[in-house]
Parts: sequence; C-alpha cells; structure tokens
Amino acid sequence: MKEKINHDDTLPKDHPRYESLKYRHKIIEGMKEIVVAEAGLIAHGRGECFDYMLGEKTNEIAEKAIKVAVALLLISEKPILSVNGNTAALVPEELVALSNVVSAPLEINIFYGKEGRVKAITDALIKAGATNLLGTDESKMVEIEELSSNRRRVDPNGIKIADTVFVPLEDGDRTEALKKLGKKVIAVDLNPISRTAIWADITIVDNIVRVLPKMIKIAGELKNLNKEELRKMVKDFDNKKNIQDILEMIKEHLEKQKEGAFKILE
Amino acid sequence: MKEKINHDDTLPKDHPRYESLKYRHKIIEGMKEIVVAEAGLIAHGRGECFDYMLGEKTNEIAEKAIKVAVALLLISEKPILSVNGNTAALVPEELVALSNVVSAPLEINIFYGKEGRVKAITDALIKAGATNLLGTDESKMVEIEELSSNRRRVDPNGIKIADTVFVPLEDGDRTEALKKLGKKVIAVDLNPISRTAIWADITIVDNIVRVLPKMIKIAGELKNLNKEELRKMVKDFDNKKNIQDILEMIKEHLEKQKEGAFKILE
Repeated sequence: MKEKINHDDTLPKDHPRYESLKYRHKIIEGMKEIVVAEAGLIAHGRGECFDYMLGEKTNEIAEKAIKVAVALLLISEKPILSVNGNTAALVPEELVALSNVVSAPLEINIFYGKEGRVKAITDALIKAGATNLLGTDESKMVEIEELSSNRRRVDPNGIKIADTVFVPLEDGDRTEALKKLGKKVIAVDLNPISRTAIWADITIVDNIVRVLPKMIKIAGELKNLNKEELRKMVKDFDNKKNIQDILEMIKEHLEKQKEGAFKILE
Repeated sequence: MKEKINHDDTLPKDHPRYESLKYRHKIIEGMKEIVVAEAGLIAHGRGECFDYMLGEKTNEIAEKAIKVAVALLLISEKPILSVNGNTAALVPEELVALSNVVSAPLEINIFYGKEGRVKAITDALIKAGATNLLGTDESKMVEIEELSSNRRRVDPNGIKIADTVFVPLEDGDRTEALKKLGKKVIAVDLNPISRTAIWADITIVDNIVRVLPKMIKIAGELKNLNKEELRKMVKDFDNKKNIQDILEMIKEHLEKQKEGAFKILE
C-alpha cells in the first residue's frame, strides 16, 4: 500500500493551506536528504503555530524590522548570513540572492552535527547557485567561547571576524554568545519571546519564507541611499518596542478569535 | 562522527526543559518505529508552541473540561477512545489505563496509512497492556461518510456504532464528520481555535501527557457518583465559554511577557 499523503505535487494550488503544506513538504524532504535534523521538523511545527497566531502574513511591524535589518547589513563591514538545515531546505535560492545583493557570505552553522550533514547542506546551497560559501570545511573551523554546542565551531574567515551576523531560525544560546562577543545580531524568529528574539538587536518576527524575498527587494532599494541615512534607521530602531508591538498584535488577533473562530459552526 | 544530541537518557532531570525534551525524544523514536508519521513531528512542534503559550501547565479551565469529559465517558453507552500515532508514542500506558477505568475500547485510527503503521501501533499498545483493541484488522473496516481521508475507515464494532468518541490530537475534518454523524466528541487539542477545538462538544486545551493521568485519577473518583449528577455536569458545560476563557488566559500570559521576557537581559 502506498503512503496516502497529498504531497506538494498533487495538492491543488487553491487549497487554503497550500503554502503551509508546500513548505512542510520541503522540510520532510530535507530530512530525508539529511539537510534537516529530526528536531528540525519539530521546530518547523513550532514555527507554524506562531505563524498561525500572526495570521500567516507579514505585518507592518515585521516589515519595518526587515527594512532596518537590511540597512544594518548594508552598513556592516563584515556581515555574515548564517545558514542552518531548515533554512537551506526551505529557501536556498533566496539565501543565495540575499547573499549577493548585500555582499555577505553564507556560513553553514548547525546544531546537530550528524555525519554528512554539512556536505548535504553545502550541496543544496551550491545547487541553488551559492559561490561565496563558508563553514564547509570542518577541519578548518575555530571555536568561539561562550558556547558549548556544536555551533561554537565557526569559520575563521566568517562568523569569527564578523561584525554583524544574520541568524534565521536560531537557538537562544547562540544569539546570547554572539552578543557577548560584541557582534550585532539580526534574528528571524516567529516566537517573539524566545531568547533569540529578546537578545537580538533586530528581531524580525515573521516567516523566513516571506522575509527573504522582501529583504532581497528592499536591499535593491536601500543600496541607493547614503550610509548616513542607513545608520540613522538602525540607530532609531527600538527592538524592545518592536517585540512589544508584536505581542500586542497577537493579543488583538486572539481577541478577534473569541467570536470569529465560532463562525464555522454557523 | 556520532550525532551530538542529548537524548532522554543523558539529559539531567533538573534541566528546565526536561519534560518537553523527554516527549520530543519519544516522538522521534516513534517515527523511527513508524508509529509516528513524519508530519506527526511537525504537529508535535505546533503543540509545543501552544503549550508554551499556556505556561506548560494544566490550568483550572482545562481541569474543569477534563472533569466533564470523564463524566461524559462514564454516562455514554458506547464510548470509544481513538488512538493515533502520536498518542501511541507519547502515552501508551495511560491510554490503556483510561480505557480500563472508563470501560471504553481503544480504536486505532490514523491519517497517514503507510504500510505497517497499524501493526506498529498495535504492537506498541499491546506492549503497554492493551486487551480491548479495535481498528487492528484493516480487512474488516467499514467506511463512514462525510470524510475523504484514510480516517473514514473505522471498525464496525467501534467508532461506527459509538455514541461518544474521545479524539486526542485530531484533525479538523474528522471531528466535523463525527459531529455530523451525531456523535458526541471530546477533543484534546493545544490549539484552542483549531477546527477540532471549535467543533467538539468538550475541548480540553491541554497537553495530552498531562491530561491522561488526570483523567484516570478523576475517573476513579467520579465512578462513585450517580449518573444523574454526571449528566448534569455535562449538560451545564459550555464549550464556547471554555474556549473563550482559554483565549483570555493566553492573552494575559502574553501581556505579562511584554515586560517579563526582557528580564533575561538584566
């Protein structure tokens, strides 16, 4: 008997959950190719839940954080885009495009160091067009302090010397460690009160699959501004207020559901 | 190089995320034994997120729903406890204990009908002590209307003729179908605004790993009441109010986080 799943290729595009199911399928396929860790599936599910609470769309608060994040990448001396298994499975082409437009290398940095995973992620990124790729040669890695997991091993030409690190879908320990090393951190995290979200300088509370296309587009626009204008945008940004505004928005969404959710029974 | 995961057996019991990581490990092991579908890992992650918003404990609103749910099982003529892969992986012994104390058979009913899955779940439940088990012989299944997925196939001696169905960790289509067939539905769902949560007669918004031990304990107590008292408890229960109260509680939790979450930076 064959598996009776309606996968991406058979799912009609007008299905109300089409987008969500398409990316779920990418994550499951990513696990089969060892790009994604098993725990990465669970993390993806957590993200789905928070995205649901945000109405599964980019709101204006996230839109503003995205703009400031791009500005910070553009004024940084040595920006790096950190890549883990889930982002490589979900949005490899978009990672490469962002890397090109903001002139920041991609560095593979994973929590679960299973044999063959770095190679599988490298292959996925190269297939997506990556040329400026760090963290691929495990024998050349150096260790950063303040971190005990596999993620302490970083590329000497990348995160080690970076002034700004873009960390989508991150674990809290690492963001804290990067901050304590004096780096600026831009996080993409659907959980607005995760340790990563709280520790980061700029937290984009939105789904990575919507964030990256927007960042690529905005980078094309902001490149024409002078650095002073970009610096002002970054300086004026208040991440605590950003997160508090998101929490308020989720509360409003829940309030609407107190009656709205029952409409399906009518 | 071995996988560097701290699994259940090596994780110290005083770790702040010990309980959560223990069950995550059970789900991942369940997938390896094909008890759990790959999509079940993602569903588990969604649950973790909602549980996080509830403070990862049983609140008094859920406690009340649990009590009324047990009352309904005790007054039903033909109650059935539906079992899917995730519940079989997480709480097999507790399912058997509840089945015994409320005199309701367990029926295996799964969404992803991969070859060998029903047998794997059957084995897990028998290992946990199950004797009253339905849905194990796929050749004897009948179909219920109103449902297109694999879940339409039910046991002629179980869900087909049941008056009350207990559906932990359910998909929305099925709860709607069961309701349209005139059955009472008790759901356990951490998402208070899922279609299952909205359609069910009694929705327990809580983590199944906390719910079942409480149900078993309460069943022992309520068995001594007369059926009239139990019927009154069920009649007086308002599921819409139950869900609205939970949403209000989550809103209060989020409000507290607007300052509280930033304490880690102090």
